[in-house]
Amino acid sequence: MNLDSLHKLLESVAAGKTSVADAGKALSQISHEDIRYAHIDHHRSLRKGFPEVVFGMGKSSEQIIGILQKIASQEDVVLVTRIDPQKAEKVMSCFQHAVFDEDAKMMILKNKEVPKQGKGTILVISAGTSDIPVAREAYLTADAMGNEVKSIFDVGVAGIHRLFSHSALIEKAAVLIVVAGMEGALPSVVAGMVGRPVIAVPTSVGYGVSLGGLTALFGMLNSCSSNVAVVNIDNGFGAGYMASAINRL
Amino acid sequence: MNLDSLHKLLESVAAGKTSVADAGKALSQISHEDIRYAHIDHHRSLRKGFPEVVFGMGKSSEQIIGILQKIASQEDVVLVTRIDPQKAEKVMSCFQHAVFDEDAKMMILKNKEVPKQGKGTILVISAGTSDIPVAREAYLTADAMGNEVKSIFDVGVAGIHRLFSHSALIEKAAVLIVVAGMEGALPSVVAGMVGRPVIAVPTSVGYGVSLGGLTALFGMLNSCSSNVAVVNIDNGFGAGYMASAINRL
Amino acid sequence: MNLDSLHKLLESVAAGKTSVADAGKALSQISHEDIRYAHIDHHRSLRKGFPEVVFGMGKSSEQIIGILQKIASQEDVVLVTRIDPQKAEKVMSCFQHAVFDEDAKMMILKNKEVPKQGKGTILVISAGTSDIPVAREAYLTADAMGNEVKSIFDVGVAGIHRLFSHSALIEKAAVLIVVAGMEGALPSVVAGMVGRPVIAVPTSVGYGVSLGGLTALFGMLNSCSSNVAVVNIDNGFGAGYMASAINRL
Amino acid sequence: MNLDSLHKLLESVAAGKTSVADAGKALSQISHEDIRYAHIDHHRSLRKGFPEVVFGMGKSSEQIIGILQKIASQEDVVLVTRIDPQKAEKVMSCFQHAVFDEDAKMMILKNKEVPKQGKGTILVISAGTSDIPVAREAYLTADAMGNEVKSIFDVGVAGIHRLFSHSALIEKAAVLIVVAGMEGALPSVVAGMVGRPVIAVPTSVGYGVSLGGLTALFGMLNSCSSNVAVVNIDNGFGAGYMASAINRL
Amino acid sequence: MNLDSLHKLLESVAAGKTSVADAGKALSQISHEDIRYAHIDHHRSLRKGFPEVVFGMGKSSEQIIGILQKIASQEDVVLVTRIDPQKAEKVMSCFQHAVFDEDAKMMILKNKEVPKQGKGTILVISAGTSDIPVAREAYLTADAMGNEVKSIFDVGVAGIHRLFSHSALIEKAAVLIVVAGMEGALPSVVAGMVGRPVIAVPTSVGYGVSLGGLTALFGMLNSCSSNVAVVNIDNGFGAGYMASAINRL
Amino acid sequence: MNLDSLHKLLESVAAGKTSVADAGKALSQISHEDIRYAHIDHHRSLRKGFPEVVFGMGKSSEQIIGILQKIASQEDVVLVTRIDPQKAEKVMSCFQHAVFDEDAKMMILKNKEVPKQGKGTILVISAGTSDIPVAREAYLTADAMGNEVKSIFDVGVAGIHRLFSHSALIEKAAVLIVVAGMEGALPSVVAGMVGRPVIAVPTSVGYGVSLGGLTALFGMLNSCSSNVAVVNIDNGFGAGYMASAINRL
Amino acid sequence: MNLDSLHKLLESVAAGKTSVADAGKALSQISHEDIRYAHIDHHRSLRKGFPEVVFGMGKSSEQIIGILQKIASQEDVVLVTRIDPQKAEKVMSCFQHAVFDEDAKMMILKNKEVPKQGKGTILVISAGTSDIPVAREAYLTADAMGNEVKSIFDVGVAGIHRLFSHSALIEKAAVLIVVAGMEGALPSVVAGMVGRPVIAVPTSVGYGVSLGGLTALFGMLNSCSSNVAVVNIDNGFGAGYMASAINRL
Amino acid sequence: MNLDSLHKLLESVAAGKTSVADAGKALSQISHEDIRYAHIDHHRSLRKGFPEVVFGMGKSSEQIIGILQKIASQEDVVLVTRIDPQKAEKVMSCFQHAVFDEDAKMMILKNKEVPKQGKGTILVISAGTSDIPVAREAYLTADAMGNEVKSIFDVGVAGIHRLFSHSALIEKAAVLIVVAGMEGALPSVVAGMVGRPVIAVPTSVGYGVSLGGLTALFGMLNSCSSNVAVVNIDNGFGAGYMASAINRL
Repeated sequence: MNLDSLHKLLESVAAGKTSVADAGKALSQISHEDIRYAHIDHHRSLRKGFPEVVFGMGKSSEQIIGILQKIASQEDVVLVTRIDPQKAEKVMSCFQHAVFDEDAKMMILKNKEVPKQGKGTILVISAGTSDIPVAREAYLTADAMGNEVKSIFDVGVAGIHRLFSHSALIEKAAVLIVVAGMEGALPSVVAGMVGRPVIAVPTSVGYGVSLGGLTALFGMLNSCSSNVAVVNIDNGFGAGYMASAINRL
Repeated sequence: MNLDSLHKLLESVAAGKTSVADAGKALSQISHEDIRYAHIDHHRSLRKGFPEVVFGMGKSSEQIIGILQKIASQEDVVLVTRIDPQKAEKVMSCFQHAVFDEDAKMMILKNKEVPKQGKGTILVISAGTSDIPVAREAYLTADAMGNEVKSIFDVGVAGIHRLFSHSALIEKAAVLIVVAGMEGALPSVVAGMVGRPVIAVPTSVGYGVSLGGLTALFGMLNSCSSNVAVVNIDNGFGAGYMASAINRL
Repeated sequence: MNLDSLHKLLESVAAGKTSVADAGKALSQISHEDIRYAHIDHHRSLRKGFPEVVFGMGKSSEQIIGILQKIASQEDVVLVTRIDPQKAEKVMSCFQHAVFDEDAKMMILKNKEVPKQGKGTILVISAGTSDIPVAREAYLTADAMGNEVKSIFDVGVAGIHRLFSHSALIEKAAVLIVVAGMEGALPSVVAGMVGRPVIAVPTSVGYGVSLGGLTALFGMLNSCSSNVAVVNIDNGFGAGYMASAINRL
Repeated sequence: MNLDSLHKLLESVAAGKTSVADAGKALSQISHEDIRYAHIDHHRSLRKGFPEVVFGMGKSSEQIIGILQKIASQEDVVLVTRIDPQKAEKVMSCFQHAVFDEDAKMMILKNKEVPKQGKGTILVISAGTSDIPVAREAYLTADAMGNEVKSIFDVGVAGIHRLFSHSALIEKAAVLIVVAGMEGALPSVVAGMVGRPVIAVPTSVGYGVSLGGLTALFGMLNSCSSNVAVVNIDNGFGAGYMASAINRL
Repeated sequence: MNLDSLHKLLESVAAGKTSVADAGKALSQISHEDIRYAHIDHHRSLRKGFPEVVFGMGKSSEQIIGILQKIASQEDVVLVTRIDPQKAEKVMSCFQHAVFDEDAKMMILKNKEVPKQGKGTILVISAGTSDIPVAREAYLTADAMGNEVKSIFDVGVAGIHRLFSHSALIEKAAVLIVVAGMEGALPSVVAGMVGRPVIAVPTSVGYGVSLGGLTALFGMLNSCSSNVAVVNIDNGFGAGYMASAINRL
Repeated sequence: MNLDSLHKLLESVAAGKTSVADAGKALSQISHEDIRYAHIDHHRSLRKGFPEVVFGMGKSSEQIIGILQKIASQEDVVLVTRIDPQKAEKVMSCFQHAVFDEDAKMMILKNKEVPKQGKGTILVISAGTSDIPVAREAYLTADAMGNEVKSIFDVGVAGIHRLFSHSALIEKAAVLIVVAGMEGALPSVVAGMVGRPVIAVPTSVGYGVSLGGLTALFGMLNSCSSNVAVVNIDNGFGAGYMASAINRL
Repeated sequence: MNLDSLHKLLESVAAGKTSVADAGKALSQISHEDIRYAHIDHHRSLRKGFPEVVFGMGKSSEQIIGILQKIASQEDVVLVTRIDPQKAEKVMSCFQHAVFDEDAKMMILKNKEVPKQGKGTILVISAGTSDIPVAREAYLTADAMGNEVKSIFDVGVAGIHRLFSHSALIEKAAVLIVVAGMEGALPSVVAGMVGRPVIAVPTSVGYGVSLGGLTALFGMLNSCSSNVAVVNIDNGFGAGYMASAINRL
Repeated sequence: MNLDSLHKLLESVAAGKTSVADAGKALSQISHEDIRYAHIDHHRSLRKGFPEVVFGMGKSSEQIIGILQKIASQEDVVLVTRIDPQKAEKVMSCFQHAVFDEDAKMMILKNKEVPKQGKGTILVISAGTSDIPVAREAYLTADAMGNEVKSIFDVGVAGIHRLFSHSALIEKAAVLIVVAGMEGALPSVVAGMVGRPVIAVPTSVGYGVSLGGLTALFGMLNSCSSNVAVVNIDNGFGAGYMASAINRL
């Protein structure tokens, strides 16, 4: 239940259109709902402006379906992250208007178009072609949360003129998400070009001492540019969510 | 040279008050200035809205003085971070209106009061008393960059009712900086209470498997709340800078 | 052979119902029995109050069957941990009243109902839905060892009101087992609410810098609450066993 | 304020000996008290059965004194851990009946003798002479919390007969704390001898791949005995506290 | 070519039974032989008393066959380690009297019975049933190198009386190989019982912070007993080889 | 577009054989070309003397084909690294004169024979047979970039006379690439024999504390010989490229 | 009490020269002696052929003196390792014929000359001049335990001809101790030259990714020569002790 | 003894100016010289084109003096690295024309001016002011080995225009040494601008997850530019030496 639907319900009660008994029943689960293997946090929408997101990893498709049924009945949009194609197929047989993005391994279930709430543009930049799945997860999240989102892919520092050719777009963005694996140098360079907040996302792309993304992560945390903050390795979702929180201010 | 002083100079040229020769001389160093042991980035103020900050660690007091003389001649406010009291004393003998904060090991040199540019309030929360030096570095940075800043100290999760008693302040903040060592759990809890962006700062407070702050850092990057992004261990400065970049949007 | 059956045997000898020769034969293996690939520790029941538990990982189903035949002939209950479904199926064809739990990957073989020996209630709490398999291993172990066990699942710190709604149950428990992956913050919060001993179990749930559970483990070891001790990553069995040892005091 | 003093106050009000105004004043700080650099958790005694303990590391002696003044005014006993001799000396000039233990680097401030609340004996065992400071911190904590405590020092596994000569004492203990550095093997051996709960404490004693205690810690977490749970490296205090929580059941 | 066959060849030349030309041809490859993908070290037998051993991991079955053909033509016994069953099957179709041990993943090719050269008995002890494959690799290596070898399996420290019941065998051994995973405590205990050299072998058995055997390895290197030296994780072969080198003194 | 073809184009314009319009069109993509999932860096050939190399890992065969079509239209030779046989097969159905090396997992597409540009010989040495795939990647890269390349395989330090028997070849090489796994000692020994630059390549060959090549890497970085520099684990390509850059001086 | 003095005592009783009462008193402490901060293991000499060695690190000089008084009264030779000069000076004021070696930080207290018990020569080789302190600890330990010991210092692999010039000495040794920091390559090369057992000792000499000796340690554990076993970083004592145990066979 | 002096000696013998006896004496130490704590490698100059360099760390000033006396008697130039000011002062009292550089902690002893042997210019670039000591060690080494060396300091990626303003110098260099701490991104960017070999030097400048330089090291090894090879953390000397070896080709 988000702020909008809460207000509508209360207005309907005030107007005598909804009985107190019915409203009470609707509101009784507002805090959270216990379905044995999960406590659905229905209050999250009110508290945080976006409903609970389902972390698909380690959940069975049955559990995901059960959780979705509870959330989707009350919310306009629900996201499932890190859901593999096999599970997604099963889940989508129950939620037929859901959309699954194979690159980002993300499922989006919209009951209603989400209005644009973000004030500026969020720009997603990736260092390499292999970083695109993570970049796409960030893109889809920010988009689903009601933001204008743009992207530039494969502009890593080995040929830095490729980055500079997009400087107009870069300077115009309100929030930047920069996705990079290997040495993870791109966020420092981008953040050095602008004064806007940059969310850096390390990826596990690479081999040897890329250490599954730790090297990119540590490099980004050590950025000599200061308008940078970092999320977990391959956490495109978190970057999109954080950028959206910033863009709503 | 910041945007304001650049405009004034150009207007003065337009008005015939400054000769082209003098203006040219003033602008000749606008990109950067090479003083052998440093390339001062005078363009940073224009590009990023805040002048270059001097990282004191590993620099001699002579080098810091030399760099400050170049920056301070063109900017309203200059920060020196991670400067120990001995070096600070030597530097302050040359810059007598500079202020040194012993907790935060930060020096602030203001030629002019910085106008409030941030739109909302930045709230700095620390988990423990021992985390205060890092929290203070964040506080002073955000303050010097023109923001309204507030703080709550020592409200860690072992007695979580202490945190909840400040919920009004927490819900009102535009950006939150949460500083914690040991298990680093506080940012998750705080971010779970609000929809605003939270900058998490791990500290090196602790012993044994606190691993010099790595445990707090990794915990924060794994936060089950999504409106969180993280900066380097003990990097109060970076948190204050990033929060300020966000608060200017 | 547990304390109970030892007493019965000795009484039977005293009453002349069992010959000294037969009793001698029965007692000859009381210390341990060498079956080439294993030394069965039959003395464990006497020494520790619970028979040897079979660690299934790295053993063939033939070895497990051989070991079970030796233990089950002398004990009321035997547990096999970390046994995958394929091995379990083979083993169960020899022990048809054995029960296999697919979530916990645990097999339980009861010859006799285990009497409740624990004095209070053991409460198992999990932070997320994905942590349930580990929580369930703890639950089944404590249950098999003769305790009253209760559970609450999916009450992580991102929506901490879900936890507080169960405070009555939490305050009543004699021993608490708190299972969490990712940042592993839940045990600190729970231990801050009560004075009872809390056994914290880190899980390998997460990705990136969850580091296979190391981050949760280190976080729990750094807990700012002091009534917490920790077991190995994903070691639900050890947590259940330790809680049971505590609950028997 | 502990449960005892709370009851006394309420009885005094009931008996008309204390005015409601005075009682209200006394109770107003019952939740917590904000002294700028710390939020004193006065409620902890009621909630957890023992007042807040002051973690001395990273606090100035002035901060410790300020915090102690607030806690000591309401509690029977207060502990300060990880306080070095220099700070301890300054603090003790304000609290003259405080006692400082140089080995354990712990300060104990008793306003009233703590009654024995623990039911059995807590036994502290150390593997080596060099582990004694940590063992002593555990000993003093459990003692201050109202338990019968005994100790055996320097009985490591290189001469395991030394351990077995104390088997009577070991078998009689209700809770065991086993402290060891280097390879950290002692807790496994001790836990194999008894069915009681064992709290294992790794120490940073050793060199090379003792890795500051990580090797002992990891060894203990991998114990092939199951009645073992572990606390942070060198955390004698936590072990004493946890053992006390167990012993009160 | 080993010392024995070298002497025979030279004696044959001395006796006029072999022509200088033929002997020269036979000796021409004595140093090493280049077969493009390998340099066979035929001199190793003379230099070290045992021919080159083939490390099977990362080699194709074709490469192994090619190398074996060169070594086997000149030596009495050849070992191939870490060879999986599929490769072993292919290799054995070319060397039909070779023997493959599935537990140890080792292939042994004997042209002639190896005489017992070791002076005492080598005793292989394993902590658990799951450590047997590594223990077996040590056993087979020491056996193939001409030693009397004995073994005791599954006598870990959780039931230490099982170990003590074998003390006669333990005290009689000339060299001991102790194999253990998890906390790796067994070598310390065994080495504390005897004055003989102990070769400790950590195994990757375990989960969580067993860290693939690193914990056992580090524990063994930190042994508080001093007659212990350590080989790589799961390196049963190296332990058998080293024990054999010691036993030949 | 490389320097050669650029000059030819400009000469053709100067000679009136190519119209300015056509030349302009050809040059318009000289900087880089955006094909949505990649920014092809056509300028690289001019800037660095060798065209962009395609990193195959994490790219789909469709993406590789798309990128190759853009590069191959302008360059004489293109490399694809870390491409598995399945993807390679699909790609080669579009580029039928491409060659795939199964050992090195590298694809080479030559439109024209590359002239020898390197001045001396590059010598590739491997410590073991299992290191050959990485050594071969180095060999093929240096060869494709126009160098005279030689190789010696399986001359590790356990039988160091094998290495010394090749000393003439070693002393004659202009640049040496030394590939080794396990303890990674070979580059130190080789670099101690010559004054020429040695590029050391650690491989992931080994087990236990070879740590996936980290041990070899760290050993090489600690080389007590100083004419050594190191590339990433298993990065034969980088070694060949760097050796080629050196050999062109 | 060693085997020799035990026999003498018993013979004296048999001969009627010592009363049973006196002998009983002398033997009563034969197992171990509890002096509060230590359990002296007097049985070690009988069990292991060499008395307990005092690990000086983390013990006060008072504790060391107390322990020495107990051991020295019964044994011919006592060693104290890792004792710094300040403590050594205090201890030597009580034991005036003790000898302190400043390089090795070792104290040796001999009541009687130790007879040569080792059968062959132990050879200690160091890779660099900076490794000498560790090499010397090995040398002194092996010497004190009754072995013929020789040494060669500073023959690292960067100039490997230096090592080969000592090949006669190397081939003659019964046991070899090879001490090296940095990349730790020397033990592999030496072990490749001989068939005798090699004890490898990594040192903490180096910087950067020498990682305090971990790189040398891991390199040695990965040695491609198989007659190598390894002790802890900087553990010259352990190497000398192990070599001595081997040399006594 | 270098190639030049060897030739002169032999010519003098040929000309009858030096007796065979005297020449023999002079040449007898040509391989190496054993001075008990060191084996001076006099052959290195002939083999590698530059005499042995003294690694000062862990050596006493007496040892350094002894080694220098042996080397300096035969060579034109000798370097001592990682020598602290106290030791340097003592050493310089014996070698009065030696020069000590306090930044680089390096001592240079020249008997004769070293001729320029390098063919192109070596350019040393540092990312920050705090990296200068390491950059200077590289500079001095390359200079002492007979190269033309230039430098640019403090041109890190946070203000990348500072780097580009030096592009002429960068493009002209034959070999580049790029020194950076923190995220270590600079070598990738520089190597992307040129086709020449780049030696990357990570420094330990930074805090938190700079991990003493590991992050910069790993970042550089993961460089997406391929003409990069890396040396140990803070190893300016090695970079200078390697660059010199390359520049002599």
